[in-house]
This record gives sequence, C-alpha cells and structure tokens, in this order.
Amino acid sequence: MRSADNLLILKAFAQELADAARTETMQRWKLGIAADDKGGGSGFDPVTEADREAERAMRGMIEARFPEHGIAGEEFPDKAAAGPLLWSLDPIDGTRSFICGMPTWVTLIALLEEGAPALGLIDAPRLAERYIGDCEKTWLISAGGETSLSSSGCETLADARFSTTDPFLFKEAEADPFAELQRRVRTTRYGHDGYAYARLAAGSIDLVVETGLKTHDYNALIPVVRGSGGVIGNWSGGGDFKAGQVVAAATPRLFDEAVALLEAAATS
Amino acid sequence: MRSADNLLILKAFAQELADAARTETMQRWKLGIAADDKGGGSGFDPVTEADREAERAMRGMIEARFPEHGIAGEEFPDKAAAGPLLWSLDPIDGTRSFICGMPTWVTLIALLEEGAPALGLIDAPRLAERYIGDCEKTWLISAGGETSLSSSGCETLADARFSTTDPFLFKEAEADPFAELQRRVRTTRYGHDGYAYARLAAGSIDLVVETGLKTHDYNALIPVVRGSGGVIGNWSGGGDFKAGQVVAAATPRLFDEAVALLEAAATS
Repeated sequence: MRSADNLLILKAFAQELADAARTETMQRWKLGIAADDKGGGSGFDPVTEADREAERAMRGMIEARFPEHGIAGEEFPDKAAAGPLLWSLDPIDGTRSFICGMPTWVTLIALLEEGAPALGLIDAPRLAERYIGDCEKTWLISAGGETSLSSSGCETLADARFSTTDPFLFKEAEADPFAELQRRVRTTRYGHDGYAYARLAAGSIDLVVETGLKTHDYNALIPVVRGSGGVIGNWSGGGDFKAGQVVAAATPRLFDEAVALLEAAATS
Repeated sequence: MRSADNLLILKAFAQELADAARTETMQRWKLGIAADDKGGGSGFDPVTEADREAERAMRGMIEARFPEHGIAGEEFPDKAAAGPLLWSLDPIDGTRSFICGMPTWVTLIALLEEGAPALGLIDAPRLAERYIGDCEKTWLISAGGETSLSSSGCETLADARFSTTDPFLFKEAEADPFAELQRRVRTTRYGHDGYAYARLAAGSIDLVVETGLKTHDYNALIPVVRGSGGVIGNWSGGGDFKAGQVVAAATPRLFDEAVALLEAAATS
C-alpha cells in the first residue's frame, strides 16, 4: 500500500467499485421515482434493494481481486482482514434524499490501512461527480475530466457557508453550540449527507458539523477533506471519530473557531 | 391566450426564456464555485450578477416579441401590461444553494392571465431538468425527452415525503403546526426551494409547506403542481397566496390533512 504503484492500483480499483455500485443504485433510484405505488405496499423498496445489491456487487469484486482485504459494510457481516487493509462501504449515504428523488445521495468507499482511512471516494451518481482523496490530494472526476481540488480559504464563521444534514439531531448539550453556529455563519444548508464534505473539498462549502455519524459514514470523508487542504476532526479537535461527532472545515482557523464553540458538548 | 395555438406559442417562448436564463446563470454558478476568493472581497458576487443578467436577458426577449405583455421580476421595476398577460420572473430561486455549489437552485417563469397563473416553468440548470405546466398537464423535459408527469398517490401524512426550504422560518403561531407536521410525516427534506414543487409534480415528494413566499416565488409553481394532479393552496385551503403561506400536496386527501393542521396559523 505504501508504494505509489499500489496506491494507483487501489485508486483505480476503488473507481471500479464505484462504477459497479452506480449501476445498482441508479437503476433502482429511477425505478423508485417512477413507481406508482409511492407509499409502499408493492413490496418493492428501492433504497433497501439498491443498498444491498450495490454492497453485494462491491464485496464480490473485493473478494475476487483482493481476498486478503477486510470488508466492513452496512448490509452484511464484517469480513476480517488477513493483513493491514480493510474496505469500508456505504452504498447509499443519504437514503432520505434517495427516496425523495433528490440528487445529492452518495456512495462512500474508503480503504483503511491499520485502521486509518488512507483513501476515500465519494460518488454522486445522479450528478455524475466522483471525488477521490488520499489525504494528500483530492480530485473531482466528472464529464469535465479530472480536476485537483482545494478547499476554500474561508477563515471565519461569519464568512462560512455551513452545512449539516439534520438540524434536529442536535439534542441536549449539543443543541446550544449548534444554535450558536447557525447564528454566526453566513448561510446554512441542510440534508446533503456525505455530499456536503465533497463540496467542502471542492471549495463551495466551508464548514460541516454533524453528530451521530457511524464509521461507514465518516471513513471515506476523511481522506477527501484532508487531501483538499481541509481539516476534519472530532468536536474536541482530535482525530478519534468513534463518538460520531464530526467537524470539517476549509482552513485550520475556521476549524479552531468551530471547535471552540463545540468542545463544551464534545463526548470524546 | 385561450386558443390552443397561442398556448403552444407561449409555452415554446417560455422555454426560450429559460434557455437564455440558463446561459446567464450557469456560467456564473461555475465561476462562483471556481473563484479563489470565497468569502467575498473581490467584488464579484456571482448570484447577484446571475440574477440580474438572467432577468435582463428575459426582459429583453419579452419586450421584443410581446411588447404588450407586462413583466414583474425581482431585479428591475415592474412593466405594466397593455392587455391580460403578464410574465412573473425569478431568475434564481434558491440563492443559498447557488452560493454553496449545490445543484437544486431553479429559475422560475410564470405567465399570468388576468392575474391568474396559467403557465409555469421550473428550470433546474445544473440538473438539466425543465418542468412546465399549464394547470391541466405538466411535462418534464430532460435529456430523456419529454415526459408527462403525475403527482404521487400519497393520501396520508404518515406516508408523506415532506419538504420545506427552511425549518427555522416557522415562528410563533406557525411553529406548532409545523412541528406537528414534522412528527407525523414519513420523512422530511430541507433547502430545495422551488425544486421541491417540481419533484412533487414528478411524484417523488408528496407534500411541501412553506411560509414567507413572495409572488415571484409561487406564481410558477401553481400551474406545475396543478397540471400534475397535485393540489396547491394557502394554509386555509384557499387559492389566495398573497400571505405567502403555501401548501402543496400530491392528492386532495393529503392536502386536507395538512390544512387541518395548518389552518389555526393561517393568516388568510
């Protein structure tokens, strides 16, 4: 993995996984939107099927090509690694956007080395945008070709374009610092799940703060944000994400300003 | 206007307006995302420029082709009509999505006859989706061609995919019915402005409730929602939108269930 050749091979393979997932998710997303029976009852649950079939496809490819790699996903039991490398898979991040026919749901794919996310991929099938980062660089791959990305230069909350998935997730001790963030930032967006971190890497979102994230939610985001020059950590400013409280910022100064507000409610 | 020929001509013309607006908005949206100076300071304000130049382009086309038509937009003074027809223009609905590089901002174009919205167009440039309705039919025009749209068959809040732009806009008397709606629905999406009504027409959103809408925000939505079989009215269930409280639903039953909750806070 540490060799540049290995990294190139694994980056190309991560893209093959994303291609396979896209095939499984996009057809069911379109079917779901077209289904007459909107409220359920037909037994066809497009998001559950898409999640399961996309993960099944990716697992099959990993097992065939790299049988020594571990696999952790949402839908099937974990497969232990016979070595340092493990894939973390979330076929559909943004299930609510998916079922509402909205475009910003994503597939998250991460490769961890000795437990640390080394490679992250955020794929937005409806938008035909793919973001891939390795902690040192981040690229956007789209119809326009491959572009190297940089997070914005935003250094203050007052200038920040802020995104969080669900404003009603912040409860009890978390509610106050969240409300204060909302008051201080330039503008707030909701509901974009992993796609918000992709836009942070691309420079059009400056700050993302979330709580309640699971490992398969955040693993892929870390190399994408870091590779763009952004900072991602927990609400105390540290690098342990297990408590699920995540803050990502375009610059170290903005990160510090957000952490100063959030750390009182940090659980790690 | 009442003749089918006139309607066809005006529908085609509305699309020419949307094409012209797309050219003005898309280039500035991309420039805005690419700009190094994210927090302002360069004097380049992509959303303001896009708004103004798109409206200027559309006004010029209307004045050249239909000098007797009235024009009401956000950026320039109203032009009175010398007849029954008036265009209502909102070049960028969803300015916060626009400045955050998110895809669901839209251009809204409506043609009013004797003050009643007869034709509505919702154009989503980044998604290359165009929705056009005439109160009797609604079509989606995209790379896949032209499709006739129907709202979903959803009849209860418990099954409803609910969307509202800003959950923090509901203040005082409006806060309680909004919170109750959120509790009762199947799922909630935020931040999609006029695009949420397009997805209601397309059957993937079942209910939209908003407050604080201006005439140029809602005029185009009405023919699109009604043409798909959906219902759109104010919080009392009536057809006067001047108070800015709007509810749109996939079916009459769902509309009535939402209105039953909302009417206590209705101001019209």
